[in-house]
Amino acid sequence: MSAGRFLTLEGGEGVGKSTQARALAAALETRGIHVVLTREPGGSEGAEAIRDLLMQGDVRRWSAHAEALLFAAARADHVEKRIRPMVDAGSWVICDRFIDSTRAYQGAQGIDDAAILALHGFGSRGLLPDRTLLLTLPDGEGDRRAQARDGGAADRFAARDDGFHRSVAATFDRIARDEADRVRRIDASGRVEQVTQRLIDAIADLLP
Amino acid sequence: MSAGRFLTLEGGEGVGKSTQARALAAALETRGIHVVLTREPGGSEGAEAIRDLLMQGDVRRWSAHAEALLFAAARADHVEKRIRPMVDAGSWVICDRFIDSTRAYQGAQGIDDAAILALHGFGSRGLLPDRTLLLTLPDGEGDRRAQARDGGAADRFAARDDGFHRSVAATFDRIARDEADRVRRIDASGRVEQVTQRLIDAIADLLP
Repeated sequence: MSAGRFLTLEGGEGVGKSTQARALAAALETRGIHVVLTREPGGSEGAEAIRDLLMQGDVRRWSAHAEALLFAAARADHVEKRIRPMVDAGSWVICDRFIDSTRAYQGAQGIDDAAILALHGFGSRGLLPDRTLLLTLPDGEGDRRAQARDGGAADRFAARDDGFHRSVAATFDRIARDEADRVRRIDASGRVEQVTQRLIDAIADLLP
Repeated sequence: MSAGRFLTLEGGEGVGKSTQARALAAALETRGIHVVLTREPGGSEGAEAIRDLLMQGDVRRWSAHAEALLFAAARADHVEKRIRPMVDAGSWVICDRFIDSTRAYQGAQGIDDAAILALHGFGSRGLLPDRTLLLTLPDGEGDRRAQARDGGAADRFAARDDGFHRSVAATFDRIARDEADRVRRIDASGRVEQVTQRLIDAIADLLP
């Protein structure tokens, strides 16, 4: 049995993360790899219960600090109950959003990156993906796609102003620059199959 | 208007914290002090929602690390939305359990005290009570009282073994020794009014 791998997809709203996670899972499965597709916040029973707390209610229901602690708690459960056991068993786990989303979205609310990584160290023993695929689109196009998809029924994380979304994008860019071994920027424009091929090229060195 | 104060009651199950919190509140109110009585986990709308997650289900539903993060998130909400605003407004806040319970109960599950205090620093800016009243009873008597009260329907925190409860008691003792300015040990045996008088004596220096 070959070793499992842990891959994450990251990026702003509307860049096609969920679609590409499914397409990448299918492409890996045709290579005989057992794939587990999951997403955050959520992904395990306890984490989904915390997700419900996070996603409902007013955008100001939780302070940025309480929110960061809730994300860290949900991730700790997801990592311990699902991600680590599946990777240890030899599966490839593809997760739609992970620690980099917390760094980008909580960072845009003024939480220090080192503090977020400290919480991740405490809750999840600092687990990082083998490869992170950062999907990018030209400024504003992802937001337009997300609005078209959601019909204006944005959840409380999407419903932020332009400055917030620019800060999120800037943090994703910084992470990709600083952690180039782990994080690959992927152009998310074009047809779905074209983007999926770019993702496969970006993990070619990990394939058996 | 005089300054508000923040008092906490701590101790194992069955030592009479809730009864004494109410009695102390009544005694302070007869002195013209405005008192807010609260408890943890919970105490604010968001924290009560997290309390529901923590108190339900199997004793092993959450890992010790996830549980510590959830307690820190609930406390962050309680401190920000209720405790700080009430103390700032001049009230005396009496809280049934606070950070020392987390240190004792999570510590008994192997979580490092420094890590728990770091989470408290992140979530609640490290807020400590003006005075903590640690109620104590001879070994095992609190457990017997709690069992009689609960009729065997112990919640998931009470349902631990003897070694766990001894570890909890040892941590409370250590905190009382190390932080003697803040924490006072109170003999919880005898009639309710006798115990309440001991509590009042232990905060006499704070009274207006």
